[in-house]
Amino acid sequence: MAVQERGVRTRRGLVLAAALEIDRAGYEGATLTRICAAASVSMGALTFHFPSKAALADAVQEEGRALAQRLVGRILESPEPTLRAVADLTVGLAGLLEEDVVVRSAARLARERPQQPDRWVQVWLPAVCDLLERARRAGGGDMVAHPGAVVALVGYLLTGAEAQMRAGCVSGGGRVAQQVADIWRFVLDGVAAHSA
Amino acid sequence: MAVQERGVRTRRGLVLAAALEIDRAGYEGATLTRICAAASVSMGALTFHFPSKAALADAVQEEGRALAQRLVGRILESPEPTLRAVADLTVGLAGLLEEDVVVRSAARLARERPQQPDRWVQVWLPAVCDLLERARRAGGGDMVAHPGAVVALVGYLLTGAEAQMRAGCVSGGGRVAQQVADIWRFVLDGVAAHSA
Repeated sequence: MAVQERGVRTRRGLVLAAALEIDRAGYEGATLTRICAAASVSMGALTFHFPSKAALADAVQEEGRALAQRLVGRILESPEPTLRAVADLTVGLAGLLEEDVVVRSAARLARERPQQPDRWVQVWLPAVCDLLERARRAGGGDMVAHPGAVVALVGYLLTGAEAQMRAGCVSGGGRVAQQVADIWRFVLDGVAAHSA
Repeated sequence: MAVQERGVRTRRGLVLAAALEIDRAGYEGATLTRICAAASVSMGALTFHFPSKAALADAVQEEGRALAQRLVGRILESPEPTLRAVADLTVGLAGLLEEDVVVRSAARLARERPQQPDRWVQVWLPAVCDLLERARRAGGGDMVAHPGAVVALVGYLLTGAEAQMRAGCVSGGGRVAQQVADIWRFVLDGVAAHSA
């Protein structure tokens, strides 16, 4: 049992170390030697858990996507009006990308390994489409006049947020999520008045 | 005179070939050999016009910025209401990035050569601030309630547009500019009703 626990801890340590390394150097640039050193784990222990860099990257993507999908799931259950929920989803994901290196690394991997089926857009696109479709079916004031534009806005804000973080244009510490929240407030103020 | 004209043509051919190469391979990855081949120019002729890769990249950045600033200048003179002008500027720059390899390459170089003073944000940021400030001074219905959010929105849309183009998420042919235009229409519809 103690051995099993240690195994789980080692595995998690490796996934975190891999996320840090990939966030910094990208998939191509990441080396297993640096990941072992950061996780204080031997190469033998690494290959016991992950036979290849690809397998380790798969684990980072899986964990990052799971974290993001937990957030998306919570928002799908919230009783907020449609666009407010879409805004919460965008701001929440921008915040996760900013705060959580595993999520940020998973998003980077999804871009750098386009041959993998795991596309980052699948984390949020079905949820946004679901919210818009529910509103359309329900009709009334919560229906969104330009659903395609809303989907595009979410996509541009999230790719823009990732690019800003990577370029170091913003200093982190919630700055990107705050900017995305400010943009949505500006948009929602106008839209709310429109449907009033 | 004919010699001079040929020199100008060679110079322009080199700048275009460099822009194509940098757009594809980045500043680090770009090679002078491939640029010579693409421009059908000898290495001697290249070094006659540009003593180094840095000098050639400077020329790409200068020409790309000049093209973008011509567009920005036209918009600053237009009689459109503030947010419509900001939208035209964003859509116009997204279109230029999409259509013009020199502009796209200049934006990429500004990001990949951060030690250079020429930051891409300087192409549009002063103009957007100018438009917002003019509206603030004039007061009335054209004043913008969230100027900081508008600046952030332009930045996210443009970095997002560039990222989408690089990732090949969109197939070009005006697709990115159209998406940015759709997003602004959605935003402006709401804002127009708000101030009505």
